[in-house]
Amino acid sequence: MLENMNEKCAVVGIFGHKEASKLAYFSLHALQHRGQEAAGISSSDGQKLHTIKDRGLVMKVFNEEKLATLSGSSAVGHTRYSTAGDDSILDAQPVFARYDLGEMAIVHNGNLTNAEEVRSALIKKGAIFQTFMDTENLIHLIAKSQKETLTDRIIDAVNRIEGAFSLVFLSRTKMFAMRDRHGFRPLSLGRLPSGGYIVASETCAFDLVGADYIRDVEAGELLIFEENKAPLSIKVFEPTPKHCIFEYVYFARPDSKVFGQSVYQTRKNMGRELAHIKPIKADIVIPVPDGGVPAAIGYAQESGIPYELGIMRNHYIGRTFIEPTQEMRDLKVKMKLSPMAEAIKDKIVIVIDDSIVRGTTSRRIVKMLKEAGAKEVHMRISSPPTTDPCFYGVDTPNKEKLIAANMSVEEICAFIEADSLAYLDEAGLLRSVNATDDRYCTACFTGNYIV
Amino acid sequence: MLENMNEKCAVVGIFGHKEASKLAYFSLHALQHRGQEAAGISSSDGQKLHTIKDRGLVMKVFNEEKLATLSGSSAVGHTRYSTAGDDSILDAQPVFARYDLGEMAIVHNGNLTNAEEVRSALIKKGAIFQTFMDTENLIHLIAKSQKETLTDRIIDAVNRIEGAFSLVFLSRTKMFAMRDRHGFRPLSLGRLPSGGYIVASETCAFDLVGADYIRDVEAGELLIFEENKAPLSIKVFEPTPKHCIFEYVYFARPDSKVFGQSVYQTRKNMGRELAHIKPIKADIVIPVPDGGVPAAIGYAQESGIPYELGIMRNHYIGRTFIEPTQEMRDLKVKMKLSPMAEAIKDKIVIVIDDSIVRGTTSRRIVKMLKEAGAKEVHMRISSPPTTDPCFYGVDTPNKEKLIAANMSVEEICAFIEADSLAYLDEAGLLRSVNATDDRYCTACFTGNYIV
Amino acid sequence: MLENMNEKCAVVGIFGHKEASKLAYFSLHALQHRGQEAAGISSSDGQKLHTIKDRGLVMKVFNEEKLATLSGSSAVGHTRYSTAGDDSILDAQPVFARYDLGEMAIVHNGNLTNAEEVRSALIKKGAIFQTFMDTENLIHLIAKSQKETLTDRIIDAVNRIEGAFSLVFLSRTKMFAMRDRHGFRPLSLGRLPSGGYIVASETCAFDLVGADYIRDVEAGELLIFEENKAPLSIKVFEPTPKHCIFEYVYFARPDSKVFGQSVYQTRKNMGRELAHIKPIKADIVIPVPDGGVPAAIGYAQESGIPYELGIMRNHYIGRTFIEPTQEMRDLKVKMKLSPMAEAIKDKIVIVIDDSIVRGTTSRRIVKMLKEAGAKEVHMRISSPPTTDPCFYGVDTPNKEKLIAANMSVEEICAFIEADSLAYLDEAGLLRSVNATDDRYCTACFTGNYIV
Amino acid sequence: MLENMNEKCAVVGIFGHKEASKLAYFSLHALQHRGQEAAGISSSDGQKLHTIKDRGLVMKVFNEEKLATLSGSSAVGHTRYSTAGDDSILDAQPVFARYDLGEMAIVHNGNLTNAEEVRSALIKKGAIFQTFMDTENLIHLIAKSQKETLTDRIIDAVNRIEGAFSLVFLSRTKMFAMRDRHGFRPLSLGRLPSGGYIVASETCAFDLVGADYIRDVEAGELLIFEENKAPLSIKVFEPTPKHCIFEYVYFARPDSKVFGQSVYQTRKNMGRELAHIKPIKADIVIPVPDGGVPAAIGYAQESGIPYELGIMRNHYIGRTFIEPTQEMRDLKVKMKLSPMAEAIKDKIVIVIDDSIVRGTTSRRIVKMLKEAGAKEVHMRISSPPTTDPCFYGVDTPNKEKLIAANMSVEEICAFIEADSLAYLDEAGLLRSVNATDDRYCTACFTGNYIV
Repeated sequence: MLENMNEKCAVVGIFGHKEASKLAYFSLHALQHRGQEAAGISSSDGQKLHTIKDRGLVMKVFNEEKLATLSGSSAVGHTRYSTAGDDSILDAQPVFARYDLGEMAIVHNGNLTNAEEVRSALIKKGAIFQTFMDTENLIHLIAKSQKETLTDRIIDAVNRIEGAFSLVFLSRTKMFAMRDRHGFRPLSLGRLPSGGYIVASETCAFDLVGADYIRDVEAGELLIFEENKAPLSIKVFEPTPKHCIFEYVYFARPDSKVFGQSVYQTRKNMGRELAHIKPIKADIVIPVPDGGVPAAIGYAQESGIPYELGIMRNHYIGRTFIEPTQEMRDLKVKMKLSPMAEAIKDKIVIVIDDSIVRGTTSRRIVKMLKEAGAKEVHMRISSPPTTDPCFYGVDTPNKEKLIAANMSVEEICAFIEADSLAYLDEAGLLRSVNATDDRYCTACFTGNYIV
Repeated sequence: MLENMNEKCAVVGIFGHKEASKLAYFSLHALQHRGQEAAGISSSDGQKLHTIKDRGLVMKVFNEEKLATLSGSSAVGHTRYSTAGDDSILDAQPVFARYDLGEMAIVHNGNLTNAEEVRSALIKKGAIFQTFMDTENLIHLIAKSQKETLTDRIIDAVNRIEGAFSLVFLSRTKMFAMRDRHGFRPLSLGRLPSGGYIVASETCAFDLVGADYIRDVEAGELLIFEENKAPLSIKVFEPTPKHCIFEYVYFARPDSKVFGQSVYQTRKNMGRELAHIKPIKADIVIPVPDGGVPAAIGYAQESGIPYELGIMRNHYIGRTFIEPTQEMRDLKVKMKLSPMAEAIKDKIVIVIDDSIVRGTTSRRIVKMLKEAGAKEVHMRISSPPTTDPCFYGVDTPNKEKLIAANMSVEEICAFIEADSLAYLDEAGLLRSVNATDDRYCTACFTGNYIV
Repeated sequence: MLENMNEKCAVVGIFGHKEASKLAYFSLHALQHRGQEAAGISSSDGQKLHTIKDRGLVMKVFNEEKLATLSGSSAVGHTRYSTAGDDSILDAQPVFARYDLGEMAIVHNGNLTNAEEVRSALIKKGAIFQTFMDTENLIHLIAKSQKETLTDRIIDAVNRIEGAFSLVFLSRTKMFAMRDRHGFRPLSLGRLPSGGYIVASETCAFDLVGADYIRDVEAGELLIFEENKAPLSIKVFEPTPKHCIFEYVYFARPDSKVFGQSVYQTRKNMGRELAHIKPIKADIVIPVPDGGVPAAIGYAQESGIPYELGIMRNHYIGRTFIEPTQEMRDLKVKMKLSPMAEAIKDKIVIVIDDSIVRGTTSRRIVKMLKEAGAKEVHMRISSPPTTDPCFYGVDTPNKEKLIAANMSVEEICAFIEADSLAYLDEAGLLRSVNATDDRYCTACFTGNYIV
Repeated sequence: MLENMNEKCAVVGIFGHKEASKLAYFSLHALQHRGQEAAGISSSDGQKLHTIKDRGLVMKVFNEEKLATLSGSSAVGHTRYSTAGDDSILDAQPVFARYDLGEMAIVHNGNLTNAEEVRSALIKKGAIFQTFMDTENLIHLIAKSQKETLTDRIIDAVNRIEGAFSLVFLSRTKMFAMRDRHGFRPLSLGRLPSGGYIVASETCAFDLVGADYIRDVEAGELLIFEENKAPLSIKVFEPTPKHCIFEYVYFARPDSKVFGQSVYQTRKNMGRELAHIKPIKADIVIPVPDGGVPAAIGYAQESGIPYELGIMRNHYIGRTFIEPTQEMRDLKVKMKLSPMAEAIKDKIVIVIDDSIVRGTTSRRIVKMLKEAGAKEVHMRISSPPTTDPCFYGVDTPNKEKLIAANMSVEEICAFIEADSLAYLDEAGLLRSVNATDDRYCTACFTGNYIV
């Protein structure tokens, strides 16, 4: 129940389909779990780009009439998570620009680590920035590049940025997809049933529109889509993969494939591995829904302890505009999650969650289970302690708010008032995702950032 | 996945709490799964009743300001499912009336089988009906009763109506809760942490507001709540229980207790029983979420076949305002449910659902699983074939639309294109709910209606 | 600028037009000035009545889809002003009822003076009241009448009520229009271009839909509309006209004809008469828009003093959700009205308004004009001092809040800080409306109520 | 009734008031008639600029909470008229940019005639454009200027642009107001009651917030506002005034002063002048509301023909979502305007409007007046025939849609079916606005554009 870590964005690109924006729209629905604050689509009809973007869910931003104005056979889309602050209307994507080669629209998932530096240099040379998105750097770098073709300019531009980026560019006649040299954030390539192409942050978008998964866009690879041609691949950087392992732990949808593997299977593996950490004789294994479900199933299968639906997630959650009375403390978590009292009562319960960020939700869950009659509550986490913030596109709290950065496992256990607590270790996590080399970024667990 | 059968309503009553309407409001959130079309609350401040009701979700109908106008220490609330038709604004509950004894507000879950008859008789005597709710009969019967006290009039009134009714009445100083002689629909009694009382359709409302379950309001019982007194019980009818067994199968929230038993446990039992019907050697057991989950867990435990999360339910469902293109057929079900391809591929899959109404959704699910790579798909239903419509408060399609009323199990299996299909039999269902006598209404499976 | 007196309602009925509800809808737009809180239409398709009503402006309550459900060739509509209070959702009209003769829908403009009495008697006999509208009395009286035909029952019912009522009833096959014996509130009859009929509170509705004015429904007259027949007239009461003179002063739209006369002309007459009351040598005559315009034109023509647009009414009025700072006092009136400084500066100004209720708005207007540079401000009111509340369908403040009930004209003049103040006298008002007998109710000026 | 010509924008700047954004907000309400499509405010708290802007009316874009985030003692605001097309979310103003000197926000009323040229040159040098507003040129020119101070850069920038611009710039510590050398669009300077300053497109904004008019910002003048200093004036261009005469004819609010003169007085003057053009013996003079009112008053005073309120403007206009039936032709104009039949019947009517653009509305008005019984309808227009489009900030139809560009006065008269038609001539118009030299742009009447 990662209430305080959020994937920042999802991207999609459609090329070579007469209803490109419609497919992009459906894809954004599938990717909505990666960002609910704003959504947008740009399409190209060959002559001109059309853009609609706004705050709010995909469902709210678009309607039939609006979608109809996004004509053309190529489109890029974006859905974003946004931190509060100044009016964020301009911070929706795609970022659109007219420049010397024409028009372009860019969608970006990730975070540029040298954004301030690049921006300062650009500003010194007379550039102006109209938004607070680091993506704006890219359109400047492309516009200012001395190269002649857009392809060369994109290559030029991405050579000047550092950090995490899975990008899709749309020009009037072409589409480009690009991942940083480490491939921090996912980006997959698929084939539309009618022959065009789709790239998207997660393959669940492919499934929805009936596309077939071909392969991932490679770390460091630039893919160029042009009419009546197969996508052209350019190796812009020598790949040194550092895929975000947290995609497997929490972010990605379990029915997606990211970095070439089924998310669901890796989560089940984590549960299986976790079953060997501080094993205890319990009556039942239950997940914190929905995130903990696959790991709990894996844990139950490995340990032989029965799996139960011990906590239910409610669908009609009222925004609690009214302050609950004293006797209704813990109402907020209860409106979201309810214990299945009969299944829990007098039982020794192992409860599986994917991670602990601040600890307050875990504490409420333990309390709720005990009040529902659990004899003992043993919390098991299907990832290592989250000790360090992410700089590659995930919204994490400051280190001082990450409970695992400030307390030992024993102290956390005491804080959340569980009878025991254990985390999956890094080795187990790596085995779960079939890591045979150092291809995953585990900085949020280890503090080992790529320089 | 009962898309075509709907519980019609939920009721709640709060007595003896200074924030009665606030507790009613929270309770309606917990009961929202029983009706999403309209919601309302009436409160009494001892002098006057206050009512707010409107179309829409609880969250939309109320806000802090509105709730503040519902002052007083007692309140009744209602959330309703509504069939389309004429403007239904007047068909929200509570039904309010001023009459010779003062003011009253009534909330009702159920369906009166002699409503037309009673209404005709009342109309002949000069009564007027301003809504299309059978509940309006009750306020007329109470107003016209020759008895002196409200208690006697309620008893008089309920003696003239037939069918299913779980009712809560609010007067300026008292609250009354009543169930029909068969106790078709559930109604439970709880104690608020601060000493007052709550009655509600399901105990999940108790859990949310921190109330303790005391017991069910009995079939045929009238409970009278008065200040500074214990609730007074009057046996209005000799109880002949015929509890709606479908509450266990589908309607009630799994974390609720209805008719004195845990819904979750009975659903798991159904799964266990189902494991003995037409057993096959399968690789995995998966539920149709969310309804099929408890039965699938029970089935897996009993059969020893591994439980998997084979289908995922999506939370950000777009209203499909645009007609999907030909190549996006089946998009609608896919936006709601996605297969976990990796878990299913090349597997013999048993998929558990709670019921089949029209068959079209089941057909889409089978198709989706096969397209995701399932080697065989065996559908198992944790209740008997639904062959007959309900007259006791459930919205069912006409008999000609109930697939099981028109096809044999073999024919249904062929229609949904499953490799095999089996239903739980009535005996197994009755064992699952620990029926030692004929206390359950199974008319929707058997056509044996109570006369 | 009568901010504190409000006409309570408008009614319309359409008979014999295949798009009856559409005409009713357009008519309600024209009548919207008489009530902005709620709107509704009932139509009859010959078999069944259809009703849609809700809070809000006509524009918001209806849309194309909703209007399409109101099929049939007859319809009644209502738009209402509503006092705040409990949730007023049920207090929208038409009032619909099923009763022993079938179905009916009623719309009502006026106020029944014996409503409580009638209600109590009905309640004693077992009736129940579900709303707070006195109109509900009528459906009870009709339903309970022992007469056989609806016509006789309506006659029976209106014989039991007292006060002001302009009513339109709709049954499945007929429409009835009725005014009380005094004809307090207006109701006119017109012919649709295609041959059907329209009745409406004001003739501006006729103009919008292209209908021709035939005559007023008479005081005490019941008109019965039936297919393929001319409207049948029944004199239910001997007419003793007491038309609301305030319709001419303020309520009615100037382009309407009410009680057989042009509202615009009577208002101009009031201005002409007013020119003879306490005449002074002024530079300009200006109206308080929009109400004071016709009287100001009349005043200017009669006095020879130039008419100017001295105050402008603004169309984009922001709801002042923020408290204006101290230096922005009077901001509220300024957002609504702005002085035409150049026209006013150094001028002796006569400002014409239709009435003064509490005096606070007049005070702000005088202040605003003086701040804009007026040398002197002389307030002239085109009606006598409003000293008494209305019981016949107008929402007036309590007597203690009516400034003219508590202060002399001199005191009011001092309070509003005008250089002089004069009101039209009763005789002048009566001449303005061509009163040759006592056919007008002037109770709000005289306290002479009809008993 | 200029339905087809629209002022494009209004600007406001507040400097030196602790509730600067609140004053800007109120000012935008007063200026809302100049643009209803989008609104925005940027404020500076000395360290940082804060911006909120969105589509919709001022009332909708802001609420108390949002306004509270716009802290600081200086603010600029904008309200805009927007042509339909691509999603215009980015085309709201203020335009915000971070650049090498920090942050700036700009609001602009006008139109740059060399925008495409400037943009192309900028783009060639590597600039990117993210919106479709010509205002974006300015931030680029300022950012790229080699001058050291913002003041010098603004001067540098405005030297490169041509056309109409009334601008307000906000930096962290200063505010700048600037008008083009011709002073096409208005911009006035006022003093806030507490000592700070306001600049706004029209003085009606001053009146609302209690500010005193000081003088106009001069054509070609740059005003610099700095804390604790009197505004510094720099004559950037030698002024060659060409004020938009249409501000007097139609755009500005009559209670405003623009270009140093009362709008109301000039409109009355136009009416007086018009009375001498093709005079006829008529019974009454009536305005087309609201635009024609001052001229009609002037006409009546000069001619001695009585002024009447012959047409009423309705406030509750329904969007006509439903196609009116054949018998309801002309319904659309009737919902907006209604004739005062009694005042018009059998009269020879002179109807005054400010201009005719396409002619269709005039035609409907004449028809409506005749149907209301007018014996003769003589249309008089208080400006010369509109023959040429505007390039200085007004949204005009193409020349082929301007009826006066394609028909003679006689032909127009025949088209609108009036008994006679006359326009004010240019000389009369110039006298009305007290033009003693060529200080007004009359290009829309003459085609004499400033090069």
